[in-house]
Amino acid sequence: MRGLDPRIHVLLEPIRTKEGVDGRDKPGHDGFHVPERDMTHDDLKQTMIWAGKVLVDEGQDDFTRGHISVRVPGDPSRFYMKPHSIGLDEITMDNILTIGLDGNVVAGTAKRHSEVYIHSEIFKARADVACVLHTHPPYSIALSATGRPMKAYSQPGALFHDSLGLYDDTINLIRSPETGAGVARALGPRRAVLLKNHGVVVTGASIEEVVISTIMLENAAMIQMIAEAAGTPAPEFPLADIQKLKHDISRPEQFKVNFDYLVRRAKRRG
Amino acid sequence: MRGLDPRIHVLLEPIRTKEGVDGRDKPGHDGFHVPERDMTHDDLKQTMIWAGKVLVDEGQDDFTRGHISVRVPGDPSRFYMKPHSIGLDEITMDNILTIGLDGNVVAGTAKRHSEVYIHSEIFKARADVACVLHTHPPYSIALSATGRPMKAYSQPGALFHDSLGLYDDTINLIRSPETGAGVARALGPRRAVLLKNHGVVVTGASIEEVVISTIMLENAAMIQMIAEAAGTPAPEFPLADIQKLKHDISRPEQFKVNFDYLVRRAKRRG
Amino acid sequence: MRGLDPRIHVLLEPIRTKEGVDGRDKPGHDGFHVPERDMTHDDLKQTMIWAGKVLVDEGQDDFTRGHISVRVPGDPSRFYMKPHSIGLDEITMDNILTIGLDGNVVAGTAKRHSEVYIHSEIFKARADVACVLHTHPPYSIALSATGRPMKAYSQPGALFHDSLGLYDDTINLIRSPETGAGVARALGPRRAVLLKNHGVVVTGASIEEVVISTIMLENAAMIQMIAEAAGTPAPEFPLADIQKLKHDISRPEQFKVNFDYLVRRAKRRG
Amino acid sequence: MRGLDPRIHVLLEPIRTKEGVDGRDKPGHDGFHVPERDMTHDDLKQTMIWAGKVLVDEGQDDFTRGHISVRVPGDPSRFYMKPHSIGLDEITMDNILTIGLDGNVVAGTAKRHSEVYIHSEIFKARADVACVLHTHPPYSIALSATGRPMKAYSQPGALFHDSLGLYDDTINLIRSPETGAGVARALGPRRAVLLKNHGVVVTGASIEEVVISTIMLENAAMIQMIAEAAGTPAPEFPLADIQKLKHDISRPEQFKVNFDYLVRRAKRRG
Repeated sequence: MRGLDPRIHVLLEPIRTKEGVDGRDKPGHDGFHVPERDMTHDDLKQTMIWAGKVLVDEGQDDFTRGHISVRVPGDPSRFYMKPHSIGLDEITMDNILTIGLDGNVVAGTAKRHSEVYIHSEIFKARADVACVLHTHPPYSIALSATGRPMKAYSQPGALFHDSLGLYDDTINLIRSPETGAGVARALGPRRAVLLKNHGVVVTGASIEEVVISTIMLENAAMIQMIAEAAGTPAPEFPLADIQKLKHDISRPEQFKVNFDYLVRRAKRRG
Repeated sequence: MRGLDPRIHVLLEPIRTKEGVDGRDKPGHDGFHVPERDMTHDDLKQTMIWAGKVLVDEGQDDFTRGHISVRVPGDPSRFYMKPHSIGLDEITMDNILTIGLDGNVVAGTAKRHSEVYIHSEIFKARADVACVLHTHPPYSIALSATGRPMKAYSQPGALFHDSLGLYDDTINLIRSPETGAGVARALGPRRAVLLKNHGVVVTGASIEEVVISTIMLENAAMIQMIAEAAGTPAPEFPLADIQKLKHDISRPEQFKVNFDYLVRRAKRRG
Repeated sequence: MRGLDPRIHVLLEPIRTKEGVDGRDKPGHDGFHVPERDMTHDDLKQTMIWAGKVLVDEGQDDFTRGHISVRVPGDPSRFYMKPHSIGLDEITMDNILTIGLDGNVVAGTAKRHSEVYIHSEIFKARADVACVLHTHPPYSIALSATGRPMKAYSQPGALFHDSLGLYDDTINLIRSPETGAGVARALGPRRAVLLKNHGVVVTGASIEEVVISTIMLENAAMIQMIAEAAGTPAPEFPLADIQKLKHDISRPEQFKVNFDYLVRRAKRRG
Repeated sequence: MRGLDPRIHVLLEPIRTKEGVDGRDKPGHDGFHVPERDMTHDDLKQTMIWAGKVLVDEGQDDFTRGHISVRVPGDPSRFYMKPHSIGLDEITMDNILTIGLDGNVVAGTAKRHSEVYIHSEIFKARADVACVLHTHPPYSIALSATGRPMKAYSQPGALFHDSLGLYDDTINLIRSPETGAGVARALGPRRAVLLKNHGVVVTGASIEEVVISTIMLENAAMIQMIAEAAGTPAPEFPLADIQKLKHDISRPEQFKVNFDYLVRRAKRRG
């Protein structure tokens, strides 16, 4: 009953690629590698459905706001995306949209999020990105409002060291290809970008990586906000020390192990 | 089981009116338009019942304190209101009171909240208001205690930019037509008013709008309190940028979409 | 199903006394009146059982620490008290102890809390007190650590205006009649006393009053800590204004109305 | 239904030893005594299983990160440990590993945590330690980032007075015997050590002691962060006063009483 659920184990295979994860170690470049896995489209959609439920369990919801997308395997010019008007925990096989890099719906009848261009422009600019998530977590937004950089006051903070852009062109919704391209530029080669006074956009090589690193981003922001409120924190560790940790906790299989755990927990909680 | 519940979809029709939402764009004026919808009184009461459950789920409860009212369709001189002595999640078809603009009970046998005059005086002063809510959310009260204005450090903060009055005549309960009129004056043409060291009063063109914007107000206050505790925040975006966002996220149908989601979630959680 | 549970309504009658509540209005004196109600001892014990469950639901638990007592009706020299080694939500008709004003167990076989002298010494010193509660809520402890007074930055803060003593003789457990008497002296004629860097002791004329005002104390401390972290708050309202509110929200029937609601909610949640 | 569950009562006997708990009173030395109890290995593993569920209930989880170990009764050169890839609430009789002081797996097929050396090196250095726990609680990490010492602003803070080391060699994972030995040195004779910008390591004479004191450490850190954010706290109590409390709340049976309560609560919540 409370033991492991064997069904989830078949969802995804380990996603380390033959080429390794080079690119990651270059300062300020996260260089994801989209895994070459033989995964059916239905498996991928099912993973997106569970991702949504996990994100709500972890407090990443803001009503029906927030959206997740994943590039279609075998067709890098298209992506699956959560529709408008439902919560992240209400994605189903039937309501997932298929969308092109111009932001137009290719398949599906549900309403499209007007901020689709966050996703389409990042998929255009970053061939290494397989998944994009946009949410409104409160501590990350507070960090963006301070205008100060993420510090490595925690291990999750190290994950985002030199990997967190800042988009500060506007507080407005990202409703045009032009502003979407602005977000993609502010993201650059990094893992994530803070939309100042608005929210976060997190990218990765898999749904699992994006969900786990988004939760880690909020955790890191929370710890930084608490530490800074209590006074001036002690200095961070030396750069090389932080970079080594960042490398070690960026391994694809770790994101999957932790994501799978959250899915099992969501299933146990019903 | 976890899919959408089709029953909630019939509760309300989209509430955008023929006249549009003019008035909203004028600085410091929210100019709601009560929608012309063919909604039965029972439907409206049912929406109020779910509003109460959603507000408790979202942490807006303070024991049995806090009260919500909605103007009677077709009779602008009367409103339905939650009674005293029960929680926001205990409103029923039978205990809802019908009250006149003088604050006297017209129909119903339950006890009236002594702060009824918050509602009656706002309904008198603001023909564009269809719903009034008063709650005691902690971050909004802390913001009121700082004496500083709400900043647009988040998108919900933009919703209340130049739309949040401050009532600071007294910390006391609003138990007379005179003090109720004072709250209405401090509200002015705005969406909401902070009662200093006491709570919030939020208004709107529908129950859905008021519930969602009250939750957004507390979210904005939380982000501001976190950011200000961690040091001096960065400057806000330019006024025109904030005003454009405020306009975009004030659309009536968005409040309904998000409210309906919270109702579905409350039903799933049982 | 989600409606009111009629069973709880018979637990207690309204507790306003013939004499009114004079004494309350004198600055720094809360002057409770133990209500003259015809309540069976079993009813009172049942109320204490529900009080414990409500306190855990509201986050007042700290493992098995924390204890509640109520004076035996008709025998002011004895009180019923939660035993050691169980949580506040594990009180039963069988494990409640009967204890004398010397702190010795008169009836019952469960282990006594070594801090029993908080209760016995307050019952000795304050004939107007019918119930004593000691818990370890985090924001109230943080407030005690600041050494600053409770401010009326919220309506619950007004309840404790000039009604909150500070005991700062020791951080240690209150395990002797002498230290218990020290707590009673620091309490004086007030509603509650902060035990510096330790916890709170709250008193009242009924279990209902004590449970609700303890939750209000923590709420007031939370709001004050948030507001002070974000900068220097605005001035409080004038003293007379605060005192009027304090009087209005100290009425015995209000504590009962709100307590009964929390009991109904605990029953609904199972 | 909500009463006590008699089954848990047989898990462990009181663990006060004939020799008392000397060593504890020496400043900066916690001197645990591994209890001489006749406990089966299965009982001990079962206690570890419940410990994991309790830790998740109390918010000590960070995905599948965090690990707990307990020394094998009768064989001080080996310890049982939670495996990699599962949550703290997913430990089972079958997946627990048996590991030697060199960090190598002796029995079991599950994957080992690469940070096993935290455990093996502490077990080597501290014959008095029977249990080691490593977690990532946010307020404790924030405290570590401030670089300031734990203060006795609460009773749990007193438990860690002069009993909390700081490891600041690296932010990295502790993946070698050498770095594990560094953590053991930073721990020294104390109860616990903060791994700066990383997490906590807590030790004790029993699983129960370690679980309860880890929760107390986070509670103490939370209260300190709140108090320091709100301004400069008042001075602590005199050293002798703090040390007396520390002695009184370090008694082994208290940890067991409180742990057993959390287990009963976890069982009631399902």
